[in-house]
Amino acid sequence: MSRVYNFSAGPSMLPEEVLKKAQEEMVEYGTSGMSVMEMSHRSKDYQAIIDEAEALVRELMNVPDNYKVLVLQGGGSTQFAMIPLNLAKKNKKADYVITGQWAKKAAEQAEKYITVNRVASSADKTFSYIPKLDKSAFSDDADYFYICYNNTIYGTRYTSLPDTDKPLIADISSCAMSEVIDVSKFGLLFAGAQKNLGPAGVTLVIVREDLIGDAMDITPIMLNYKTHADNGSMYNTPPTYAIYVLKLVLEWIKSKGGIAELQKINEAKAKILYDFLDSSKLFKGTVVPEDRSLMNAPFVTGDEEMDAKFIAAAKEAGFVNLKGHRTVGGMRASIYNAMPVEGVEKLVAFMKKFEEENA
Amino acid sequence: MSRVYNFSAGPSMLPEEVLKKAQEEMVEYGTSGMSVMEMSHRSKDYQAIIDEAEALVRELMNVPDNYKVLVLQGGGSTQFAMIPLNLAKKNKKADYVITGQWAKKAAEQAEKYITVNRVASSADKTFSYIPKLDKSAFSDDADYFYICYNNTIYGTRYTSLPDTDKPLIADISSCAMSEVIDVSKFGLLFAGAQKNLGPAGVTLVIVREDLIGDAMDITPIMLNYKTHADNGSMYNTPPTYAIYVLKLVLEWIKSKGGIAELQKINEAKAKILYDFLDSSKLFKGTVVPEDRSLMNAPFVTGDEEMDAKFIAAAKEAGFVNLKGHRTVGGMRASIYNAMPVEGVEKLVAFMKKFEEENA
Repeated sequence: MSRVYNFSAGPSMLPEEVLKKAQEEMVEYGTSGMSVMEMSHRSKDYQAIIDEAEALVRELMNVPDNYKVLVLQGGGSTQFAMIPLNLAKKNKKADYVITGQWAKKAAEQAEKYITVNRVASSADKTFSYIPKLDKSAFSDDADYFYICYNNTIYGTRYTSLPDTDKPLIADISSCAMSEVIDVSKFGLLFAGAQKNLGPAGVTLVIVREDLIGDAMDITPIMLNYKTHADNGSMYNTPPTYAIYVLKLVLEWIKSKGGIAELQKINEAKAKILYDFLDSSKLFKGTVVPEDRSLMNAPFVTGDEEMDAKFIAAAKEAGFVNLKGHRTVGGMRASIYNAMPVEGVEKLVAFMKKFEEENA
Repeated sequence: MSRVYNFSAGPSMLPEEVLKKAQEEMVEYGTSGMSVMEMSHRSKDYQAIIDEAEALVRELMNVPDNYKVLVLQGGGSTQFAMIPLNLAKKNKKADYVITGQWAKKAAEQAEKYITVNRVASSADKTFSYIPKLDKSAFSDDADYFYICYNNTIYGTRYTSLPDTDKPLIADISSCAMSEVIDVSKFGLLFAGAQKNLGPAGVTLVIVREDLIGDAMDITPIMLNYKTHADNGSMYNTPPTYAIYVLKLVLEWIKSKGGIAELQKINEAKAKILYDFLDSSKLFKGTVVPEDRSLMNAPFVTGDEEMDAKFIAAAKEAGFVNLKGHRTVGGMRASIYNAMPVEGVEKLVAFMKKFEEENA
């Protein structure tokens, strides 16, 4: 057996170099005489690992000094509660743009605690575009403004940010470190690691310091950003091994020249795929060209049987996890940082061949 | 470099067989062509892993059919909030026995949501014993009764359960699967995996079904047991790799003959250490003999300089992480399932030699 090209939306492909390094160090890490999994989180060896992970996030994303970098548990779904609980004590109100299932879930969870103003939605066309925003729909007294920067399921992404004077909060789970993002424009950014950053079980949160420390009284200690900010993400035992793999991925990103270099590669990869989709008679992309994601490309043939035939043939050929989300149907190729250019080239070559054979 | 004997309180030693198996499968799992870390949690391969983990928990702990087995994120500290939020909507009251820092923190977090009745405490003697319980101190209208079964920091454990008719809730983080526990006597059991069960980042929860589904309105979706019970612990992306390692540890426990067999070994290991402590002129255990933990054995020389000298010499000899918790001082040997008998025998031999040399 050999490694496949894995187009999973998440958890997803990791750089093979990272896996091999983790493999090499699994039983004994350096001169510690133990696995990273066995290390006390209070040990010097482990402190060096988590410190290095934070330093690399700061370096790679150019995080300003007045932001905290946290590594938490619970995924994006836990952030959906933490954000209103921590950031909306004052006016108990926030603006949300509904660009897909995850933004919708975030808004629904927020509604348990605050008033949610849905300023726009692209639900009318199965979230196949990013809606234009009308500033008159924004709340004057919102505590924050929430977006999902890249929509994993629907394959859309923001190319310009909402013009708001409120703290801008973004779910960057599926685009973190795949393109340059100006952290200073945001109040808070978060990402489940399991797409571009590492294994499932660790969530990166980057939050402006002035937004920390005014949580609602009902906030559980573990859901208060202050708890984690005050304790270097080690109030309790953190997901130590997942953070270690995150560090290896960050080192890999740095070795590739950083985020700007990866962005060029990601743009090239996306262009290969979208150019083919635009020229194909069999396959077509489901997203309006101007809002297409660099990371997640949904496409269809328009014929469910043909879709199924393609997915099965692709799997047989070593291109796996191409089935689309049930709400979109068809196919979806997630081409995160770890997907090499040749993975996309070979997929497109396979699609061309399939198209010829099924003309 | 070779592997050391790691007496860390957690994260802690894992069976070398487990680490080697994880190492072997790191880059490619079976015929999947990918690492477990890269698998979609919605894939058949991953479903088989999480199903097997649950089946093994049920088999090894003899979990009755009317209990759910959940694998969650956030550690024990998140359970400290989930327990009152989920189980105490009715009377908003619970009884807690304070046997150490973790029971204390659990009670303090619960107090944010409910009335906490501290029925007993062993704080008067640095938690060096399990307090006798006076039933007249129990609340008639408590929604549950909370204990910390084994106290990692102080090295005590319950040898008989409180005589309560309320759902009994126990933190078994540091004794899970180290001794036979009758699950049917409990309403809910939970354990952070990072001591006896696997890596940090996954928490095992075993909860009686009738206790699920009546959470307080303010409960975040991710902190509601019902969310996870209804979705096979996959409402959102679970900590997939940590659950895989948990499964490997469970397979290892089964291969050793199960929990009853491990308990015999653990009793033998503890006897070796405590017998020596009782006979030593230099070292002495800090816990009353009848409440001594099988897993965590704190001991002191009574002289801080001598303690420090011992810890340094032990480290040099390959016995690491023996420093005691700051609230107890001295030393602590955590001898979880993965610590082999010879690890304890060699430690005791080293302690004897140290005692002779420092008489």
